[in-house]
Amino acid sequence: MSDLLWPGDERAGSLFSDAALLDAMVRAEQAWLDALAVAGIAPSSTSLDGVVGVDDLEELAAGAETGGNPVIGLVRLLRERTGSSWVHRGLTSQDVLDTALVLCLRDALDQVLADVERQARALAGLVRAHRGTVMAGRTLTQHAVPITFGLKASTWLLGLVDSAVALRGVRDDLPGQAGGAAGTMAATVELAQRLPDPVAAATGVLRTYVSSLGLQGGAPWHTRRTPITGAGDALVTVADTWGRLGGDVALLSRPEIGELREALGGGSSTMPGKANPVLSVLLRRHALAAPGLAATLHVAASSYVDERPDGGWHAEWDTLRTLARRSVVAASQAADLLEGLVVDAERMAARAAEADQTLRAEQRSMTASDGGGEPPYLGATDLIIDNTLERAARVWSDL
Amino acid sequence: MSDLLWPGDERAGSLFSDAALLDAMVRAEQAWLDALAVAGIAPSSTSLDGVVGVDDLEELAAGAETGGNPVIGLVRLLRERTGSSWVHRGLTSQDVLDTALVLCLRDALDQVLADVERQARALAGLVRAHRGTVMAGRTLTQHAVPITFGLKASTWLLGLVDSAVALRGVRDDLPGQAGGAAGTMAATVELAQRLPDPVAAATGVLRTYVSSLGLQGGAPWHTRRTPITGAGDALVTVADTWGRLGGDVALLSRPEIGELREALGGGSSTMPGKANPVLSVLLRRHALAAPGLAATLHVAASSYVDERPDGGWHAEWDTLRTLARRSVVAASQAADLLEGLVVDAERMAARAAEADQTLRAEQRSMTASDGGGEPPYLGATDLIIDNTLERAARVWSDL
Amino acid sequence: MSDLLWPGDERAGSLFSDAALLDAMVRAEQAWLDALAVAGIAPSSTSLDGVVGVDDLEELAAGAETGGNPVIGLVRLLRERTGSSWVHRGLTSQDVLDTALVLCLRDALDQVLADVERQARALAGLVRAHRGTVMAGRTLTQHAVPITFGLKASTWLLGLVDSAVALRGVRDDLPGQAGGAAGTMAATVELAQRLPDPVAAATGVLRTYVSSLGLQGGAPWHTRRTPITGAGDALVTVADTWGRLGGDVALLSRPEIGELREALGGGSSTMPGKANPVLSVLLRRHALAAPGLAATLHVAASSYVDERPDGGWHAEWDTLRTLARRSVVAASQAADLLEGLVVDAERMAARAAEADQTLRAEQRSMTASDGGGEPPYLGATDLIIDNTLERAARVWSDL
Amino acid sequence: MSDLLWPGDERAGSLFSDAALLDAMVRAEQAWLDALAVAGIAPSSTSLDGVVGVDDLEELAAGAETGGNPVIGLVRLLRERTGSSWVHRGLTSQDVLDTALVLCLRDALDQVLADVERQARALAGLVRAHRGTVMAGRTLTQHAVPITFGLKASTWLLGLVDSAVALRGVRDDLPGQAGGAAGTMAATVELAQRLPDPVAAATGVLRTYVSSLGLQGGAPWHTRRTPITGAGDALVTVADTWGRLGGDVALLSRPEIGELREALGGGSSTMPGKANPVLSVLLRRHALAAPGLAATLHVAASSYVDERPDGGWHAEWDTLRTLARRSVVAASQAADLLEGLVVDAERMAARAAEADQTLRAEQRSMTASDGGGEPPYLGATDLIIDNTLERAARVWSDL
Repeated sequence: MSDLLWPGDERAGSLFSDAALLDAMVRAEQAWLDALAVAGIAPSSTSLDGVVGVDDLEELAAGAETGGNPVIGLVRLLRERTGSSWVHRGLTSQDVLDTALVLCLRDALDQVLADVERQARALAGLVRAHRGTVMAGRTLTQHAVPITFGLKASTWLLGLVDSAVALRGVRDDLPGQAGGAAGTMAATVELAQRLPDPVAAATGVLRTYVSSLGLQGGAPWHTRRTPITGAGDALVTVADTWGRLGGDVALLSRPEIGELREALGGGSSTMPGKANPVLSVLLRRHALAAPGLAATLHVAASSYVDERPDGGWHAEWDTLRTLARRSVVAASQAADLLEGLVVDAERMAARAAEADQTLRAEQRSMTASDGGGEPPYLGATDLIIDNTLERAARVWSDL
Repeated sequence: MSDLLWPGDERAGSLFSDAALLDAMVRAEQAWLDALAVAGIAPSSTSLDGVVGVDDLEELAAGAETGGNPVIGLVRLLRERTGSSWVHRGLTSQDVLDTALVLCLRDALDQVLADVERQARALAGLVRAHRGTVMAGRTLTQHAVPITFGLKASTWLLGLVDSAVALRGVRDDLPGQAGGAAGTMAATVELAQRLPDPVAAATGVLRTYVSSLGLQGGAPWHTRRTPITGAGDALVTVADTWGRLGGDVALLSRPEIGELREALGGGSSTMPGKANPVLSVLLRRHALAAPGLAATLHVAASSYVDERPDGGWHAEWDTLRTLARRSVVAASQAADLLEGLVVDAERMAARAAEADQTLRAEQRSMTASDGGGEPPYLGATDLIIDNTLERAARVWSDL
Repeated sequence: MSDLLWPGDERAGSLFSDAALLDAMVRAEQAWLDALAVAGIAPSSTSLDGVVGVDDLEELAAGAETGGNPVIGLVRLLRERTGSSWVHRGLTSQDVLDTALVLCLRDALDQVLADVERQARALAGLVRAHRGTVMAGRTLTQHAVPITFGLKASTWLLGLVDSAVALRGVRDDLPGQAGGAAGTMAATVELAQRLPDPVAAATGVLRTYVSSLGLQGGAPWHTRRTPITGAGDALVTVADTWGRLGGDVALLSRPEIGELREALGGGSSTMPGKANPVLSVLLRRHALAAPGLAATLHVAASSYVDERPDGGWHAEWDTLRTLARRSVVAASQAADLLEGLVVDAERMAARAAEADQTLRAEQRSMTASDGGGEPPYLGATDLIIDNTLERAARVWSDL
Repeated sequence: MSDLLWPGDERAGSLFSDAALLDAMVRAEQAWLDALAVAGIAPSSTSLDGVVGVDDLEELAAGAETGGNPVIGLVRLLRERTGSSWVHRGLTSQDVLDTALVLCLRDALDQVLADVERQARALAGLVRAHRGTVMAGRTLTQHAVPITFGLKASTWLLGLVDSAVALRGVRDDLPGQAGGAAGTMAATVELAQRLPDPVAAATGVLRTYVSSLGLQGGAPWHTRRTPITGAGDALVTVADTWGRLGGDVALLSRPEIGELREALGGGSSTMPGKANPVLSVLLRRHALAAPGLAATLHVAASSYVDERPDGGWHAEWDTLRTLARRSVVAASQAADLLEGLVVDAERMAARAAEADQTLRAEQRSMTASDGGGEPPYLGATDLIIDNTLERAARVWSDL
């Protein structure tokens, strides 16, 4: 699996790949089969280990159009090859695919969160190292008042704090799906008719199933897509932060400014010696494209009708996968960028000195009315930095 | 203020109107001025009550282009008319506009939340009244297995639960803004130079300011727009639920189905007697348009560079207002729709009976392997409804 | 009508305002009434001049929700006040509203096209004046090879050429709408039953109607929204060009670069002397927000079902209005920006000289293999500029 | 290359795949190399046939991040393996990648256009066969006045006409790219210094290059992305039509209506005998997701600064590929859907008869004032159909 058109894609490895999805679908079917057996509904379980694999992907993909999703073909293969008619009994296609999507999403979110933590640690280091590194503050592109690079880095860090809280909330709430054809669990209850309390047995199956997959239970969400749109929103929220980071680094890497530099600038096919801020560029790329994907998840979610929908669901899958994989890529790139970021404190000081008249105009105007007026005119910068580090440390201990 | 092109707009009244925004900007300036006086930085405060008003709107709007925002002109008017040079001292335009946006947003969110509660109460009534009202479950447009209308209504209710949790989270976390030119509070600290601890004095001003407005404090968020994008995401999340509601009601109101009906159908300019599901149509309208607005907030947020940005901020304001006002309109329409929804239980029963062979196909297939097979084949419907009502009651007590 | 939150909004005046829309709806009804009389279907026409006006707006807006659109209330007023039962006969609400939208859109497009021509003339002047003004070419933020400012301006000009062609195509193809309840013209044909050829009479009415409004005829487009989505796409296309323009000017106005400057920089509420590139910032704002609006027009268009739709149509109206008005504002701002743009040719030369080693690296690498190597290394710049001016002159004569 | 999450993806075969893109990049490099030799700039050309291939994809993809795009690694491989230093001389990475994107896009557009023609032919057949097949017209979900199925099909056909015109316009205007590092062709002119007129020689190379690839010439479009955004807009425009088609078919396939049916309904994993309108569902899926992709192309296009941009370009590639491939898939699915569409004329007649009172309400109201009043109340349906077929025949002869 290569992607020439999304440089860095290999950083996402096999996360949310077709192979990973197939594996997740089989894990869902296995967990359900096991749960049926535990509840005494099915006489016993059957191992689905190794029953299907990557060699089946092409056939499954080609067959997915007939039923509108890849689960129908998978169930046929699993039943044929194991001989077990209990496979998938009580479930509908959407149960398996939604659960598999959520499992793949969780793996992607875990990787994103791990790299966000790397970013936060690198940023905390930059904030501490440069809490007093004075540079020109810029607003609406023009010189404003002085700041320190530590303060600027702390605003990126706080963006990560907000994002991490959102991402963790989504990750820890991911639900499994097992409502059956129309969200009533009717088939499972039917299968449990011999047992004393069929409804209790069926809900017991659900509990076993979701807990064995490490997911949450609760009501079916066949048409209530908040777990999916919430994931999309959280992933775009962190993309916004990376977009800001990439934009600021690209800007401050301009030769006329030159206050920041990526450790490894990218080359050119025709201009020897050119060092482009490639990681910043690639982060900006992701930030430009992510909102359209998350918006599609909402457009789809709002179009759901009936007990299972007629297109909205199908629009979600690849959109979510694309957003999730690209997020993993960007998370890793942002961590590399921050761990290797070269800060030119002398250049910052020089620029600030050159712009001193401008940067002190506000101070003079304040002073005129009220005394004071000494440099460095940094206000509460130190305190804001301390508070930010403290807030970040509540999210990542030992930061 | 009329809006011929967004029927129902008057439901939002003056929420987030230019007049409301002007009032909110003045409240922000007043709170800051008071806080400067409380801290002993300014000698005394000055009342801004009635100093500017709706008659100034046109001039302020026309002047907003020069500085890029309406605050500069407002500060000039306030200073001229009160003679107080302390007005706005220590603040930058973005502090005032962001705080005013947040105040207007809070009022809109409160109205949305109140109407979501109306919706939830109406829905809880429908769920209880129709927990046993059997109807055809439909998936991918075709008859599937039986459900009850109470179950269907409970999926809408759970959508409201998720949305209300998100909306409340945003609402209760709305921060005021007072970072000064580049987010360092330098001007305020400068103004406090005569006091023993100027930084403590400045942050005290911030605390007084935000708490008097009922907002949260914390670090400046001039370039970290999670409070804004989070609001957008929450508003789109509830729009998704209303879109589903409108879609389902419009569908089930079709003459060939006829299981639901709006209390007051809308008329036609040429066809006498036609009763259109107007509220459903208008809810769908909002759901179609909302994702593009929330995506714009993210596109803008990710484009922020420097200490204050060069376009992203300006793209937010009217986008957020439009999304917020439309949300208020839709919230009220959805409440009316649900409070007046006419459920034709006989029609539901008749349709389900006609489709009985189809609706029972799955059951027969389950039974074949495992006994049972009596109608109504509703599985865990009752339990799912109970759990949903219980979850809703944790959000709205005495539901 | 003020808009504090979209600075510059007053540049759009009353274009596409509620008053303008009301006027356009009345013009559509008048044209139809006249055409019925011309065809001998109605006994005579009635003047609708002054029958309704801005004082009716609030009532019409408030009543629009009942029928889902403002036409039903308008027809009632027109019939009551004129006593003519022939008003609106043969039409459906969508006919009137679509035609009115198109009339308002045309006025907005005309204004945009006029200001795009102003921009093109200003740009042609800049291209000619600076065809030899050498400056650093920059790629991926870094110095690349030399260009001239005339070349850079010519790429903006070519963006305008592409946009103007698209906008004119849309403008000249705008169709009137008069299909009746379900796009069959059945009511009009019915009304013409006394005439020898009722179908010919009805289509004659359509021809008279659209030609008196200066619109195109053709089949009803109640559910085929290419006239609307095409307008949206063209407006976003020109917004892209303005976004590039604003982005480049904002960037080159940075104090560290300083090669361009807006004639009138915007001020600050706290920093005396600060001159922000306000028009550039406001152009970028529009470019950030426009794609979401055009996408909504497509989302809506693709959701149309039946003979007239259940929400998609209603989502279009205000979205189109917002996009059109903002385009008028941005067109005017871009013209002002270009007419007043200050080019600092000395600064460009100085920057290029400083970067000479870098800017000539490619040349040295080419020279190594093949001779040559003298400055200025501008390649086919002159020819590209000539071709661009020629192409632009085919769009705007005497450029 | 399988895609479990976009059922039907295999219909796009290898169009715009990594392998196809690699091939297109090599074709661009070959065309340039040949053109340099023809012009007498390079001593001779070298065949790049088979020099790189699919085995290189993984390495090229992994290396793409370093330079930010896959061309740098490709050029290195081509030079190493052929020993020719003339490979890529005069070009920049963007020249090669843009040209390759356009070549892949053209292949996709050709396939889309071929399948749109299949759709048009199938639709023309349906229009002719059912020009008199009466059915209920529906507006805002409710019964309105009678139409014929031929008329409904003709509105889909007209959507295809509009789309085909747009798609062909884009396809026939696709430009090659060869501006060099900053769009001046400086390197090529430098390489041609020995020739009598180096600029003429360089532009001759450009002409040979683009014409050998079947593309248009013209000015560099490194930062003017109308060829890309125009393609996106045209692809979304046709997606809108397919969305309408899918929506209408899905709706009319509902068991309560039953007027249309897909030839091969899709099955269910749990409900035997269920026949879902799968192709319609998959068309709706595409229509829901396409607008967000095209909007991203605009967001990216408007963010371009400098002579080559810092992220906007990189966001385009995979977005365009995804949109193009999905368009190919949907085009093929829509053709299959239309070629196999089962029309139940009896059911249509029966529904219309049942609804006769409602469907004739308007007619009675017209008649009351003006005589007439016989069924079928179809107005100008026949003429509208004739005009539509005629317009379609101007786009596809012998329709």
